[in-house]
This record gives sequence, C-alpha cells and structure tokens, in this order.
Amino acid sequence: MILAQVHLTLPIWLREVVDESRLYADDESRVALAIELARCNVENTTGGPFGAAVFTGAGQLISVGVNRVVPQNCSAAHAEMMAYMLAQARLQRHRLNENGERFVLATSAQPCCQCYGATVWAGIDELLIGARSQDVEELTEFDEGPLPADWVGELEKRGIAVKRDILREQAREVFLRYRELGGGKY
Amino acid sequence: MILAQVHLTLPIWLREVVDESRLYADDESRVALAIELARCNVENTTGGPFGAAVFTGAGQLISVGVNRVVPQNCSAAHAEMMAYMLAQARLQRHRLNENGERFVLATSAQPCCQCYGATVWAGIDELLIGARSQDVEELTEFDEGPLPADWVGELEKRGIAVKRDILREQAREVFLRYRELGGGKY
Repeated sequence: MILAQVHLTLPIWLREVVDESRLYADDESRVALAIELARCNVENTTGGPFGAAVFTGAGQLISVGVNRVVPQNCSAAHAEMMAYMLAQARLQRHRLNENGERFVLATSAQPCCQCYGATVWAGIDELLIGARSQDVEELTEFDEGPLPADWVGELEKRGIAVKRDILREQAREVFLRYRELGGGKY
Repeated sequence: MILAQVHLTLPIWLREVVDESRLYADDESRVALAIELARCNVENTTGGPFGAAVFTGAGQLISVGVNRVVPQNCSAAHAEMMAYMLAQARLQRHRLNENGERFVLATSAQPCCQCYGATVWAGIDELLIGARSQDVEELTEFDEGPLPADWVGELEKRGIAVKRDILREQAREVFLRYRELGGGKY
C-alpha cells in the first residue's frame, strides 16, 4: 500500500552533545559544531560521517543535522537536508530568511549535488564549509555527484556567500576515523 | 529548543485519486498520473503545481508525491522528494534499485536543482518528464535553479535514462490553472 507520511529523526545522543545556550559567534565555532556532530555520528554508528547546523547571523543555534540515510532508509536524509528541514519546522516557514533575518549553514563537508540544490531553496545567506568534496572522495567511497561548473558563483548570484576550508584538517579526520571503523556500513 | 524529528504528509484526497491496483504499463500512463496529482494539488490548494510517482519497471505503483513546501513549511518537500522518500520508506531501503530491480520516476515537470540531485541518489533507472523547466518558468513564478550544463548526460552516466516532453501540453495546463487560481499562494 502506498504511504502518505514520512518521519525522520535525529539520534538520541544529540541532547548530550549540543549546547543550545551557547552563542556560536564566529565561523570556526560553527563549523566545529558541524564536525563534532559528524564525529559523534560515526562513533555512535548512527549514520554517515557528515554533520551540519543552522545558525542565525548572530550565532544562535537553530537546528542541527547528521546523515541518517542508511538507518532511516532515506537517500534525502543528508546532514544539511536534516538541518534545513528542522530549522524550517522550528521557525514555521519554508524559506528561513524570508523575513529579512540572516541565516547561516555550517557543514562538515561540501554539500553533495542534492544538498547543493536544497541550499538554493532553504533561505540561507551564508554557507560555511569544512572539508572539500575532494577530501570526501579521497578518504571515503562517497560520490558527491554532478554540480554546475561554477557552483559557488551560482550561489553567490542568489545572495548566498560561500566560505571554504574552515577547520578542513579536523573535518578530514572524521573521514579517517570513519574508514578506521570500517566505513561503508553507514 | 532544537527539534529532533520532522514529519511530512501527503494530502488526504490522494486516497480518492490513486488506483493502486492498476498497472501503469507505458510512459504516458505514468506521467499522466504525475500530472493528475499536480492538478489535484492545485484544485485542493494543498501545495504547488507539481506531482510525481515511483513505479517498478513493470509498472506497479510504489509511491506518489506532490509539492508540500508551503503547507508544511519545508523547502525539501517537492513532489519528487516526497515520492522518493515514500518509496524508500515502503521498500525499506535507501537506494531503490540496489537489489537489481528496475525503478522509474515520472514527474509532471523537469526536476529542479534539488530534485535533480536527489535523483542521483534515489536509485532509479529511468526518469520520465512532462513539462520542461522553460514551461515552469514561463507560466509560473518558480525558479528551477542551477543545473550542470549536461544534466541529462550526467544522469545517463549514472545509469539513469531520461525521457522528456511526455504529455507536455497537459503538464503545461496545470500551470495555467495554477495561475488562473492566483498561483503563488502555494
């Protein structure tokens, strides 16, 4: 019988890792949280080695996401998608910045082709990236998929600033740990 | 407080429109269902003018989707995304064709940049498209977003055949009706 609803969840360990009262004032602290989420997801075997978080421009944490593809049987459940959906559900609007507030996504690794497209619609003003796609493809078996040739320029045209290589080495370490633990299960 | 779960639903009228016992043997009947879903979504004001459905290669209906972005405050809730997530939830695997079976997505209009990326990961073998992106952008205010220059070739490289302009005129009519009803609300 066809289904009429889908329900996606984050792992239970999140409550212990995320400090909601903290202000994430700079780029490094934002990407550091995304990387820590990715690391915990690997250590707890609750999904692939990717994490992301949405902040206000001032640094209030709005949502977090980790990769849940295999445990939840859902190819859409990438870290960035989870973070966008949960931020929108919390703020009850489908385009986060439609009221003129600024929003930022920090991600432990460059968005794949799906999360890239989702970024165009989510309503963020800034995209902060840890590892590069080359790091993902060098250290894991994940494919990042086809992007527009000038993917950064296409985002900038739509008002989304892109900053890369933030804590790149720490972000790469998550993939090494994932591989060490036998990667590919998630 | 940050949320840990997201729940997306299809509209209640689906049960009246979808005949699960029927075999959708040819391309036209598959895209016709996607267009009918889009049309009903417009008439019932339950989302944007887009519909999609996943079939087995032989034509068994596995899942359907319609655009739910505005009613559910979720920029990921495009018709194709809903259809992929619901097919994967039903079959309990994150890549539909990983067991060697064939799967087909029929969509009332060319996938936007987000659904394009999702198509790369969903595990389908064939993509059937009604209206072109030019039709969407000509007749509605929707932007389709940036794609790789050779978006069809990139899918074909990954084993996904693409067929376009199937019932294109009927697919365009949904956008005209959407506009007639004041479009842009959803």
